Amino acid sequence: MLGTASAMPVAERNPSAQALSVHGRYFLIDCGEGAQRAMVRFGVPLQRIDSVFISHVHGDHVYGLDGFLSTLAMGGRLAPLDVYGPRNLGPMLKFFLSYNEWIGFELRFHPLEKKVPEVILETKSLEVLALPLRHGVDTYGYLFREKEPPWNVEKDAIEKYGLSLTEIGTLKRGEDVLRPDGSVIANADVAYKPFVPRSYAYVSDTAPFPEEAAWFKGVDVLYHEATFLSEYEAEAQKRLHTTTLQAARLAQEAGVGKLVIAHYSSRNTDPSCYEAECRSIFPETYAAQDGDVFDI
Amino acid sequence: MLGTASAMPVAERNPSAQALSVHGRYFLIDCGEGAQRAMVRFGVPLQRIDSVFISHVHGDHVYGLDGFLSTLAMGGRLAPLDVYGPRNLGPMLKFFLSYNEWIGFELRFHPLEKKVPEVILETKSLEVLALPLRHGVDTYGYLFREKEPPWNVEKDAIEKYGLSLTEIGTLKRGEDVLRPDGSVIANADVAYKPFVPRSYAYVSDTAPFPEEAAWFKGVDVLYHEATFLSEYEAEAQKRLHTTTLQAARLAQEAGVGKLVIAHYSSRNTDPSCYEAECRSIFPETYAAQDGDVFDI
Repeated sequence: MLGTASAMPVAERNPSAQALSVHGRYFLIDCGEGAQRAMVRFGVPLQRIDSVFISHVHGDHVYGLDGFLSTLAMGGRLAPLDVYGPRNLGPMLKFFLSYNEWIGFELRFHPLEKKVPEVILETKSLEVLALPLRHGVDTYGYLFREKEPPWNVEKDAIEKYGLSLTEIGTLKRGEDVLRPDGSVIANADVAYKPFVPRSYAYVSDTAPFPEEAAWFKGVDVLYHEATFLSEYEAEAQKRLHTTTLQAARLAQEAGVGKLVIAHYSSRNTDPSCYEAECRSIFPETYAAQDGDVFDI
Repeated sequence: MLGTASAMPVAERNPSAQALSVHGRYFLIDCGEGAQRAMVRFGVPLQRIDSVFISHVHGDHVYGLDGFLSTLAMGGRLAPLDVYGPRNLGPMLKFFLSYNEWIGFELRFHPLEKKVPEVILETKSLEVLALPLRHGVDTYGYLFREKEPPWNVEKDAIEKYGLSLTEIGTLKRGEDVLRPDGSVIANADVAYKPFVPRSYAYVSDTAPFPEEAAWFKGVDVLYHEATFLSEYEAEAQKRLHTTTLQAARLAQEAGVGKLVIAHYSSRNTDPSCYEAECRSIFPETYAAQDGDVFDI
């Protein structure tokens, strides 16, 4: 958690930014002012970030991008950087480049224009979806989920049955092995899944909307903005934000493992108030502070 | 001192930014990333800033400007804001406005193109000069100096001599009063200066150059970048920066009251090393930390 404040500056926290480490890769999610300094402060290896996911072009989510990109360049970066975000982020990157033609790496912008959730990045082990939110300007949430891993074969079984490479391949695909002598080695007896696929959803900023519960069904950790305490529901509605109780009800309905909230209004910057309200509905709520680390 | 770091992000400090309070007005000098949060943290009344002075368009001096301007606007500001800086700052402000057409105040940009020091702002009590520095891109230092105040007349003297308004006016102009009866009331006997004019110079970033000592002659407080310890003089020269010893020699030659340094290289972020080197030549050196306040 590199930044947990909303738009108005406060002494205690940065505006929105998060780093996500997945299988040795580092992603940056939103990049409010001060994100790069927070990375240094909290030990995120800045140069190892290979992809950036921007929710929308409001300043508190994007004004740290120029400084971050400059620092990558000053550090001698050559590896390309992928940036995903709404189409109107494009001119900002282009304007940055017009002042920084000297940078040594390729900045690859992937403009999003989605009406429904869609996979925007896929690797052997992971997929990332962009999900259109409701916030006045074009805004996206991001869902990071591991793919079902292949089966592993128990080391003991390889020796015990004298498994061939072909047979191991069969087991890894989840199938049983049928041997020439008619015997069967059941997948369930000798293979196992190395991990249960995990998922993380990032949802900031948005008014609540009906599809959310289905989209975030069963995710392990749901980060959701909870800009306002419940007493400010009218203001939340007007500004297309979510209240504590709305976020907690969503977490409950979607059956997520854990709800992490932030993006606190500058009216009340004490996270414990937000946490308490959410926990009245969804006990597994955690109000994030800058520097917090959540294991998924 | 809102920011005392140079370009590479460090945990302990922000990049360049300072607030200067003069006769109830507030000026912002440079605006590196995080300046607005530092203002909140250190109690600078953000909305009372009426003029901004930008030295040059390198990111560590200017990437906090978008966030600062947004926050002024979100706070409902209507009062105009004057921004002084090199001509190539103009497109940045224009680009900001293209994404923020809704802002309620006038942003008045004063592009500088100076070959010699020139007054760019003058009030009854103060003048501000822009001074061209040597840093590759178009860069300006700023010299803030109070004007010589008018003479005040001692309250006791007014009664003692029964001074008329005309006679008080004469004394305030620094002249003696010649009365119809031939007697003289000497200015020196009844008038005094309420304060000795003070001055503050802001010099970041620059390679040393010969005119500096004359330009900053006798200023009360000289803020000068000292990016490098003396052992890195070759690097300082290459990057058009100043070393500790060069800054200290300048302070000595110019006979300033106090030298304040910052903009420390990320190679060595311990201000006490920089301070010690300067003090070997100019004992009245202070290595600034974020949040430090200097009275002039």
